[in-house]
Amino acid sequence: MPNSQSVIPNVLAERYASGAMKAIWSPEGRILIERDYWIAVMKGQRELGLKIPAKAIKDYEKVKGQVDLESIDRRERQLLHDVKSRIEEFNGLSGHEYIHLGMTSRDLTENVEQLQVLRALELIRLKAIAALKKLSERSVEYRDLMITGRTHNVPAQATTLGKRFAMAGQELLIGIDRLHDLVERYPARGLKGAVGTQLDQQTLFEGDAKKVAELEEKIVKHLGFGNVMTNVGQVYPRSLDLDTVTALEQLASAAVNMTTTVRLMAGQGLMTEGFLKGQVGSSAMPHKINCRSSERIHGFGTILKGYATMAAGLTGGQWNEGDVSCSVVRRIMLPDAFFAIDGLLETYITVLGNLGAYENAIAAENEVQLPFLATTTILMEAVKAGAGRETAHEAIKEHALAAGSEIREGRPSEAKLTERLAGDDRIPLDLKQLNKLLSQSDRFVGAAGKQVDTFKRQTAKWVKKFPASAKIKPGSLL
Amino acid sequence: MPNSQSVIPNVLAERYASGAMKAIWSPEGRILIERDYWIAVMKGQRELGLKIPAKAIKDYEKVKGQVDLESIDRRERQLLHDVKSRIEEFNGLSGHEYIHLGMTSRDLTENVEQLQVLRALELIRLKAIAALKKLSERSVEYRDLMITGRTHNVPAQATTLGKRFAMAGQELLIGIDRLHDLVERYPARGLKGAVGTQLDQQTLFEGDAKKVAELEEKIVKHLGFGNVMTNVGQVYPRSLDLDTVTALEQLASAAVNMTTTVRLMAGQGLMTEGFLKGQVGSSAMPHKINCRSSERIHGFGTILKGYATMAAGLTGGQWNEGDVSCSVVRRIMLPDAFFAIDGLLETYITVLGNLGAYENAIAAENEVQLPFLATTTILMEAVKAGAGRETAHEAIKEHALAAGSEIREGRPSEAKLTERLAGDDRIPLDLKQLNKLLSQSDRFVGAAGKQVDTFKRQTAKWVKKFPASAKIKPGSLL
Amino acid sequence: MPNSQSVIPNVLAERYASGAMKAIWSPEGRILIERDYWIAVMKGQRELGLKIPAKAIKDYEKVKGQVDLESIDRRERQLLHDVKSRIEEFNGLSGHEYIHLGMTSRDLTENVEQLQVLRALELIRLKAIAALKKLSERSVEYRDLMITGRTHNVPAQATTLGKRFAMAGQELLIGIDRLHDLVERYPARGLKGAVGTQLDQQTLFEGDAKKVAELEEKIVKHLGFGNVMTNVGQVYPRSLDLDTVTALEQLASAAVNMTTTVRLMAGQGLMTEGFLKGQVGSSAMPHKINCRSSERIHGFGTILKGYATMAAGLTGGQWNEGDVSCSVVRRIMLPDAFFAIDGLLETYITVLGNLGAYENAIAAENEVQLPFLATTTILMEAVKAGAGRETAHEAIKEHALAAGSEIREGRPSEAKLTERLAGDDRIPLDLKQLNKLLSQSDRFVGAAGKQVDTFKRQTAKWVKKFPASAKIKPGSLL
Amino acid sequence: MPNSQSVIPNVLAERYASGAMKAIWSPEGRILIERDYWIAVMKGQRELGLKIPAKAIKDYEKVKGQVDLESIDRRERQLLHDVKSRIEEFNGLSGHEYIHLGMTSRDLTENVEQLQVLRALELIRLKAIAALKKLSERSVEYRDLMITGRTHNVPAQATTLGKRFAMAGQELLIGIDRLHDLVERYPARGLKGAVGTQLDQQTLFEGDAKKVAELEEKIVKHLGFGNVMTNVGQVYPRSLDLDTVTALEQLASAAVNMTTTVRLMAGQGLMTEGFLKGQVGSSAMPHKINCRSSERIHGFGTILKGYATMAAGLTGGQWNEGDVSCSVVRRIMLPDAFFAIDGLLETYITVLGNLGAYENAIAAENEVQLPFLATTTILMEAVKAGAGRETAHEAIKEHALAAGSEIREGRPSEAKLTERLAGDDRIPLDLKQLNKLLSQSDRFVGAAGKQVDTFKRQTAKWVKKFPASAKIKPGSLL
Repeated sequence: MPNSQSVIPNVLAERYASGAMKAIWSPEGRILIERDYWIAVMKGQRELGLKIPAKAIKDYEKVKGQVDLESIDRRERQLLHDVKSRIEEFNGLSGHEYIHLGMTSRDLTENVEQLQVLRALELIRLKAIAALKKLSERSVEYRDLMITGRTHNVPAQATTLGKRFAMAGQELLIGIDRLHDLVERYPARGLKGAVGTQLDQQTLFEGDAKKVAELEEKIVKHLGFGNVMTNVGQVYPRSLDLDTVTALEQLASAAVNMTTTVRLMAGQGLMTEGFLKGQVGSSAMPHKINCRSSERIHGFGTILKGYATMAAGLTGGQWNEGDVSCSVVRRIMLPDAFFAIDGLLETYITVLGNLGAYENAIAAENEVQLPFLATTTILMEAVKAGAGRETAHEAIKEHALAAGSEIREGRPSEAKLTERLAGDDRIPLDLKQLNKLLSQSDRFVGAAGKQVDTFKRQTAKWVKKFPASAKIKPGSLL
Repeated sequence: MPNSQSVIPNVLAERYASGAMKAIWSPEGRILIERDYWIAVMKGQRELGLKIPAKAIKDYEKVKGQVDLESIDRRERQLLHDVKSRIEEFNGLSGHEYIHLGMTSRDLTENVEQLQVLRALELIRLKAIAALKKLSERSVEYRDLMITGRTHNVPAQATTLGKRFAMAGQELLIGIDRLHDLVERYPARGLKGAVGTQLDQQTLFEGDAKKVAELEEKIVKHLGFGNVMTNVGQVYPRSLDLDTVTALEQLASAAVNMTTTVRLMAGQGLMTEGFLKGQVGSSAMPHKINCRSSERIHGFGTILKGYATMAAGLTGGQWNEGDVSCSVVRRIMLPDAFFAIDGLLETYITVLGNLGAYENAIAAENEVQLPFLATTTILMEAVKAGAGRETAHEAIKEHALAAGSEIREGRPSEAKLTERLAGDDRIPLDLKQLNKLLSQSDRFVGAAGKQVDTFKRQTAKWVKKFPASAKIKPGSLL
Repeated sequence: MPNSQSVIPNVLAERYASGAMKAIWSPEGRILIERDYWIAVMKGQRELGLKIPAKAIKDYEKVKGQVDLESIDRRERQLLHDVKSRIEEFNGLSGHEYIHLGMTSRDLTENVEQLQVLRALELIRLKAIAALKKLSERSVEYRDLMITGRTHNVPAQATTLGKRFAMAGQELLIGIDRLHDLVERYPARGLKGAVGTQLDQQTLFEGDAKKVAELEEKIVKHLGFGNVMTNVGQVYPRSLDLDTVTALEQLASAAVNMTTTVRLMAGQGLMTEGFLKGQVGSSAMPHKINCRSSERIHGFGTILKGYATMAAGLTGGQWNEGDVSCSVVRRIMLPDAFFAIDGLLETYITVLGNLGAYENAIAAENEVQLPFLATTTILMEAVKAGAGRETAHEAIKEHALAAGSEIREGRPSEAKLTERLAGDDRIPLDLKQLNKLLSQSDRFVGAAGKQVDTFKRQTAKWVKKFPASAKIKPGSLL
Repeated sequence: MPNSQSVIPNVLAERYASGAMKAIWSPEGRILIERDYWIAVMKGQRELGLKIPAKAIKDYEKVKGQVDLESIDRRERQLLHDVKSRIEEFNGLSGHEYIHLGMTSRDLTENVEQLQVLRALELIRLKAIAALKKLSERSVEYRDLMITGRTHNVPAQATTLGKRFAMAGQELLIGIDRLHDLVERYPARGLKGAVGTQLDQQTLFEGDAKKVAELEEKIVKHLGFGNVMTNVGQVYPRSLDLDTVTALEQLASAAVNMTTTVRLMAGQGLMTEGFLKGQVGSSAMPHKINCRSSERIHGFGTILKGYATMAAGLTGGQWNEGDVSCSVVRRIMLPDAFFAIDGLLETYITVLGNLGAYENAIAAENEVQLPFLATTTILMEAVKAGAGRETAHEAIKEHALAAGSEIREGRPSEAKLTERLAGDDRIPLDLKQLNKLLSQSDRFVGAAGKQVDTFKRQTAKWVKKFPASAKIKPGSLL
């Protein structure tokens, strides 16, 4: 067994996530945010009267871009304290000792991590709206393509392919609603000190609580949060992480449902998720067009359920004013959950762009199934023509079972469902009436088309509200 | 092994949940809602022109209260279809066949179940606000009671007991915010037919889509929903159940965190969750006052995590226009998750009412720990007096470790932390200055009192918005 | 909203579980076990010298069958302690105070609950073997029925239906292996006292540790355990419950996988899970034969994942010598997980008995797909005839894609895959050779038949080892 | 927001896991295993008669160590197929096309991944035994150190610190039992082809099933598996991954329980998990000795619950003969679960080595609590001296509550529990008898010492069986 020399990469980040998401969670990116934050605190403290030389702040600013991860790592392996090692690194680079005054580690890390979460949530909101837009476009494209709707995976009633896509759209809209609610109310922990009482900053400012409040307000505004918590301990309540991760888990559902149906349709030869240039089928079966991307989306959904369990594992786990039993969990769960939903949406937008319906195959299925799909309509018409509902139901059931049985035995030409019904006294409709009914194919999809139109309008509102979503383009998939 | 003759009860419902919550989910309660719903649909259909005799509707209304669960059960064991059995029961009682016209099973069950969810969410919102109010009252009561704040479960800095309670309040406020968002936007599935296209109602109304829309609007309004979905299949997206159950899971966190800290404080002899009249300790140790209720609250939190996993298991699991792979899960998960959060809140409100601090024991702990808790303040003062932050930190660390060591070895009188610091040149403060500092005990709790005041104001807003919360009284615990 | 008067039933128990499983977990059944246990302890204590009158033991035995749940419930609502209430009830009935001597509550409840778990595990082992047997029979029945094997849900290579069932058998065998391991090593907590040191029994026996060991041995043997733990506190380690519940979760997987494939095959008209007499399709679509039972099995699998999360939530949660933070969780999780797996297996055995293949429809699918399925074989033959593997792969891929495209466009007669390959120089096989190859249909299923034979043998071993499994008959499904 | 240039590392691997575990899961390590595997297949095929030149095999062997991850990555980004890219890389390096004959991707990847799992399980077994040994040593060290045992986190009865550790040992023993069972029966998927029928290898060997069986046997033996499955499809049943990951989850429980109790004891000043040289307390409170490592162990336990959820999410998810919906999940879950348990055990062994009891502080606690802890013994003695059990229980309860109340009010000298009991007629013991009883402190720990001895013996068996466990040394923690 060889010893691994190279760094083991974060697979979710390196194989699946976008550059923008990686930038939020990379070690370098985080350190740059941290240093900005320290500098902002120093500036605020100086403005409010602390004796911090302007030159010192300048010196910090000069070196803030010098990120040497190896040097920081060496310090941490000696100090066994991650924040301390980064303080000493930054102090060492600048030649001063003015950062982190009156701060505890969590005054730094809680806020920096919440900023990463907030920016990542905002990115996911844009990306979800981009997926919504693409889904809406495909839904409109197939607005009137009649398909054999299925419940329990067997033919049930007609619908349209556009409507089937719009169902996934409805679920995505609900997921975006929730995500948006969360982003809008997401509160920062703020500058609260070791046990949450703001004691250390108050001491720095000689008991002047107003100055501390002013300082916190400056910092929170600098970070870009709309809200700030009042009553925290060392840490913010971890159930807020559950709020975050389950919002991602919920968002995934719409994509997984949609692409599960793509996989089912592909199995019946009705659709492809697309076949990219250069891609090969499995090495043994070169002609196969597999729904690899749709299957991968299912996998991302499963992964998110795991991170949601980790988030749930943190709730209710705080002792007194807090501890670090959540620390290693959040180091993994937060970035990885965002990498997973990011990879899912990258893949989903790609699939939505590439998928295609085999319209002739769909038409062929409709031709076989339509008389069966129409039984509900026939039942309704029979009731309107005077039949008792349960009586007509029984008659149709008998004939449908008999006709279906012929098909399953390989004798479709013997099915003759329409003729069977016409010949039964319990159904007050003759063959001519029944055939006329079946020829009105637009009668069978109900409100499907209009429902698609509604979905289009709902989508347009979100796109208008977040125009930056139009710039989201998925990278090429691995 | 005896054969069980009696019904095995739902333990969560029968041992822990309130009567109001049980009424929402009981078999009888559900059937009454269903029958109201069928009658509302018939009335709407009649108003919009369907030929349904007024007498038939009256006959249904006459018998709607006759709920015979055993008769329905017998029918189901024969028909193997639950909705069908309830249709036939109601038809049989009334002597007509007019209910459920143009409806599929899910037109009934989805909406009825969503109504149960909505009413249960509203009840939990009230109960959570009642808990918030009680928590706020206790927080105000202990606003200024200084305690030894702990991080990593060891003394860290002073805070107040009221502030410690207010931390739990902050988390509860976030949980209520989320729950409230959900209730306000919770959308009904509506009257959509077998695959979601409204075909069956359209057929009943001879293709008049406007009438169908009007009928749906009447029904949804009757149910009391603010929103209705447009694009669904047989079922509404199950990720909405995840939204629901994780909101309950999140709400539980604040209570579990708070009562975990009660358990810790009880272990140190600083607090009791209360001891009810007639209650005995464990049979072997009669004098013990155990935090049984607080431990139970922890258990409810764990239970909710399980139901959240079930809810997550339903997301992404829809095939095409839907099936019943979710059915047995939702029969268990939805009522049981609500029974669990209901039992948790019943228990929590009781604990909040009964808990009490042992103030003398708290004072004794403060006396031992204060010089240590003050090191941060001393560090700040030393920095203000000209010491380098890292240098002073090092000096304090040395002396605190030495003094702490004496305590752990059973020689507290030898600790003398103040004297040690006064005698060290690296700390530019003498003994007189240090003693003066330590006597200003109000300096050590920072903004704790004002933070409690803020919590009180935040609570008052919710209580004012939902005055019915004042009527929530927990039943006696088992 | 009506107030619920009747007891809310445990849905898993009352709708889905068998009588035998309900008897293990019913309130009455539990009390009978408990009383047997108390009597056994008294007898043991008397044999080892404690002054317990023989008449008292007789009096307890006389009344042990008088189980009055309401009386016990009244006592508990007054005492707020469940064990205490049951002690007083039994003492009251007998007129003595000799039970529970030297015992703490957990000396009773831990062992009684472990006995419930052990008996339930043994029942599930039998039932899983009964399912295995039924699966093996159906696998043998369809040993040689060639079907179109699918990977990624699209046709891949031929296999047989019997082999497809045997795959589910392989997974079930692994699950039974694990379950069996667990049953064989499942250890009892034993008679350990309040903190696990056996102090209380030692005190009763005036410090005679040997007598206490002898007493424990008698009791453990009476309960039927093969092993007993040595080092416990108040409770046994809760990770043993995780061991138990995840064994059930794992067992479910084989059934869910199998019936998911049934649902897929039903969707393609190749199979039915069976249609019971008297059952109706959905009320709107009477002819549909839905895989309701297979879908329900999927639901049970999801439910078990939730209980596994609860079990996981208990691990690592023990403080010191223990507490009751797990109590309410185990009251729900343990019986309900067993009811769920019991209901799953009941349903599964029923489906295995009723399912049927539509052989003509299967043959029709094979006819279309065989030339494609044979590409791997053609590739192998081409390599053997001298072609480079990658080159031949490329040629086959080109033609298969082209031929497949014709099918998807609705022109199957234009596919002509065999002709296309024969005409390509990169494939060193002519039309005659290719046609001969395709006619040897037994070449395409490889070792499938023999694999089924192996499964049959593996099954026979378990059936022989547990002959009682032959008596397991599922009740009728609801 | 900067763009991340450097690779984002796998935090679990890079911060917490050991070199040995990283070597199993590193990209390079995996490729070396794969190439060994391909070469073994070629050799086997050649021995069994396939025309593979000896020189080709030699050429492959020559280049097998040349692992160029970037080149492989470039190929994959073009081919969009990971196995294909690695085949072409290896073929390209060697100048031949003989690897992977008659194999499908999963013939390679399933077996290679199972080998990684098996080796990782074996490593964890060793490491768990190393932890057991260390725990046993510390348990023996503190075999007779009496402590105040706690249930519900409040004093209950005396026990010894060694016994408290041995409780964690009991749970670890159960976890190791299960892990060992799994390793011993862990079955390989084997060489089964695209849908599990061994068709492709049979074709290669012109239908000679015996040769294929012989080839598989050679390969499986080469991989070091004891068992092989017969009936699989494209993949092995994913519930085997659940078996694996939940075994790790279960193993974690013992360590989390133990270190949770360390955190509780640290909070009461009775124990430290150790303070490493160079480590600092939090930056604001330098004297604090925090249980950071114990808290981290709790975090690892939470992480494992998340990966167990992912594993559960794969069960029951197989369609037909399989697909890749599990692929991305297993890429994350399998290595990361092993990195987490590895990091947990590294940390746990370190804590077990460094922790220390503050014996004087423990003695001080015992002095306060002993009269209360003795109430059970007093109850037993009173019963032996003729008192009714319930009557004596009531008397002791009254006095204990009164005495305890004095303590909580800060007047411990007024507690006088012994005197109170001696003066009560319901207790047939006088002051002299009671004081004598209390002075026999060895009476209060029951069988604790002997239980520790049993744990020592149980540990010794495992250490003897796996002597390599003695070589496990944890790296230095970060």
